[in-house]
Amino acid sequence: MSTNLPLSGARLWDSLMEMAKIGGTPKGGSNRQTLTDVDAEGRALFRKWGEACGLTLSVDRLGNMVFRREGRDPTRAPIAIGSHLDTQPTGGKFDGVLGVLAGLEVMRALHEAGAETEAPLLLINWTNEEGARFAPPMMGSGAAMGIFTEAEVLAKRDAAGAVFGEELKRIGWQGSADPAELQKVGAYLELHIEQGKLLEDAGLDVGIVTHALAQSWFEVVVEGEEAHGGSPMAGRRDAMMAAAPLIAAVEEIALTTLAPNGEKGRGTVGVVEVYPASRNVAPSRVFFSVDFRHSDPEALARMGEALTARAAEISAARKVTATVTPFWHSPLTPFDAGLVAHARNAAVARGLKYQEMPTAIGHDAVYMARKVPTVMVFCPCHGGLSHNEAESITPEWATAGMQVLADAALAAAGLVKP
Amino acid sequence: MSTNLPLSGARLWDSLMEMAKIGGTPKGGSNRQTLTDVDAEGRALFRKWGEACGLTLSVDRLGNMVFRREGRDPTRAPIAIGSHLDTQPTGGKFDGVLGVLAGLEVMRALHEAGAETEAPLLLINWTNEEGARFAPPMMGSGAAMGIFTEAEVLAKRDAAGAVFGEELKRIGWQGSADPAELQKVGAYLELHIEQGKLLEDAGLDVGIVTHALAQSWFEVVVEGEEAHGGSPMAGRRDAMMAAAPLIAAVEEIALTTLAPNGEKGRGTVGVVEVYPASRNVAPSRVFFSVDFRHSDPEALARMGEALTARAAEISAARKVTATVTPFWHSPLTPFDAGLVAHARNAAVARGLKYQEMPTAIGHDAVYMARKVPTVMVFCPCHGGLSHNEAESITPEWATAGMQVLADAALAAAGLVKP
Repeated sequence: MSTNLPLSGARLWDSLMEMAKIGGTPKGGSNRQTLTDVDAEGRALFRKWGEACGLTLSVDRLGNMVFRREGRDPTRAPIAIGSHLDTQPTGGKFDGVLGVLAGLEVMRALHEAGAETEAPLLLINWTNEEGARFAPPMMGSGAAMGIFTEAEVLAKRDAAGAVFGEELKRIGWQGSADPAELQKVGAYLELHIEQGKLLEDAGLDVGIVTHALAQSWFEVVVEGEEAHGGSPMAGRRDAMMAAAPLIAAVEEIALTTLAPNGEKGRGTVGVVEVYPASRNVAPSRVFFSVDFRHSDPEALARMGEALTARAAEISAARKVTATVTPFWHSPLTPFDAGLVAHARNAAVARGLKYQEMPTAIGHDAVYMARKVPTVMVFCPCHGGLSHNEAESITPEWATAGMQVLADAALAAAGLVKP
Repeated sequence: MSTNLPLSGARLWDSLMEMAKIGGTPKGGSNRQTLTDVDAEGRALFRKWGEACGLTLSVDRLGNMVFRREGRDPTRAPIAIGSHLDTQPTGGKFDGVLGVLAGLEVMRALHEAGAETEAPLLLINWTNEEGARFAPPMMGSGAAMGIFTEAEVLAKRDAAGAVFGEELKRIGWQGSADPAELQKVGAYLELHIEQGKLLEDAGLDVGIVTHALAQSWFEVVVEGEEAHGGSPMAGRRDAMMAAAPLIAAVEEIALTTLAPNGEKGRGTVGVVEVYPASRNVAPSRVFFSVDFRHSDPEALARMGEALTARAAEISAARKVTATVTPFWHSPLTPFDAGLVAHARNAAVARGLKYQEMPTAIGHDAVYMARKVPTVMVFCPCHGGLSHNEAESITPEWATAGMQVLADAALAAAGLVKP
């Protein structure tokens, strides 16, 4: 189905540009990290916008903002749309923000049309999706779904030692609602930029996300022995020279561990720390992070095994100790077939070019999917760039994504024509 | 010649153990980095010891401590013994400290014997030999010899942004003497641990250093593009995956660039920094340091060329920019033949097993040798370990090195029997 609601792509775009000014960077991105003063400023603008179209705000103990629009049938579980307004330190204008403000545009259009739905509607801004300031990511949705406890989230510290719970209070956004209430929603829908270039390269308008890829994160510690830069090579047990081929192996393993359909994995080493970090000392210790993803859980498991095997080989050959420790794992998570069908029907009805695809990236929707029927809609983004100030999309893509989001959500909620 | 001075190996050892307590680490090493509070504490102890044996202290504008013992002939240029009391963050008890405290033992023995020399004697503790906190190393001796300007040394910053000149004042060790006065010394002698295991493996008591190997240090910056850890591998320009094989190449180049006599080079990557350092972001920028050394200046030049060529290959293949910039260079530096002969005669007269050898490592003596006649004496160290809390030597080795240092210095200064 496609609704006749007066959804405005132009108004959505204007709101995106206005929100981007809060924490705006000289390179055209946004730095609106979670629980900072600019996060509070962004939340306040969103509150103003939501209240202006008749929504009622509730804030829970983790700072998740939940706007509600009543439905005709108070016994029905609400249908929720959501995403996040926080960004990476060098974030763009669209990652997360598009999903929240597209949901806002749905609410605005319903309000203007005087439309009603059978089920109530929710619009959610999750706290700390990015995990840039306080790791891990997706804390607000994760704690709401019971994957983390509230206490552990509130106790997290950033690199400067600031405490999550104290920062949440300081910026004035700790509410009293129970985040676990969100486990009772009837459906969850999220529009997000793709953060890849599959849709753009294929010339498509929209992606319909059927499942989330499995991810495994590891921590690797290589320990050898310090040696002076002038000492002969023969006796060395240089941790950096052992770590270098193991880091290179992360890429090689990703490219050579194939799913039955031939699909490759993904491998990233984002953090590397060397000790004692002196120019003329061969390091005794190197720490690095590994982020492995694969559309095939079997293949993902083999990637971890291959890394451990390579670490053992290098340890033996170089008389160092290379230890690979699992740090975090996210299983393959299927999305809801009924919601996927709603989204597919919307794209067909609107004449949009679409493709069904997995997400290789964690989202609040991936945690939501553990407890409630969930679907995601992807918007193309130029060059696949994200977590980057140069992140960009076209207004046409934003509009198409919003339309599919609206149609699918209203199909789930039961739109009563105005 | 060998002197009859009552040099005490036991007293030298006791002083080494006492100094090691200042900044002592749980693993038995010392962390007495330059211009820290513990550096000031070490300097104060050294001042107390020097004054107790009748020496007069002068401190120059860079914090170099210069003790003086007058000679019979005030027209003769002074003969200087020196080394450094500062350490690496995970330093040992002997690197630098042995040379300073062996010089102190010479002064103590002269004082106790009521002995006189023709030329005045100096005993120097150089500021910031290690270069661990403020790079580059050997700043005090380098600036004294005119290799750096005083202004550039005083303006250096550590990783936390602290300024060298301000830290020197803060710990109370900026004096008013002109460091360039030290260019007028008649000779410079330095005892140091070998920081290799040639002497230990060959069962020798002492090394007599005839020259310093050439060194070239580089800075490498690899720039690609940030990408989310979930993005496909195909489009990435991951700076870390480009840096990893280039880091590995540093070792390969050292092992395969041979002198005509077949000798290999030495290559170290001691510092690696990654940006933006987030677990799920493929880095856009990697910085690393390269320390290349070779006994053959020709071969050293080829090592630098090989690194630059490899960086260009990787840049082209991976669509990144890898830039190799020369950071510091030290040419092959011969030591003084007359002082080498004094040291050799001392070893023969004492019945010590010795070998003549180069140093592959920078020392204050290497800068001194650019302006004044210089020699170094090496003391064996277990397993060649240095810049390491487990660094160790035997009291017998320390005594033998001190004896050769004393005999050679007093031969140069002209000992008048007491």
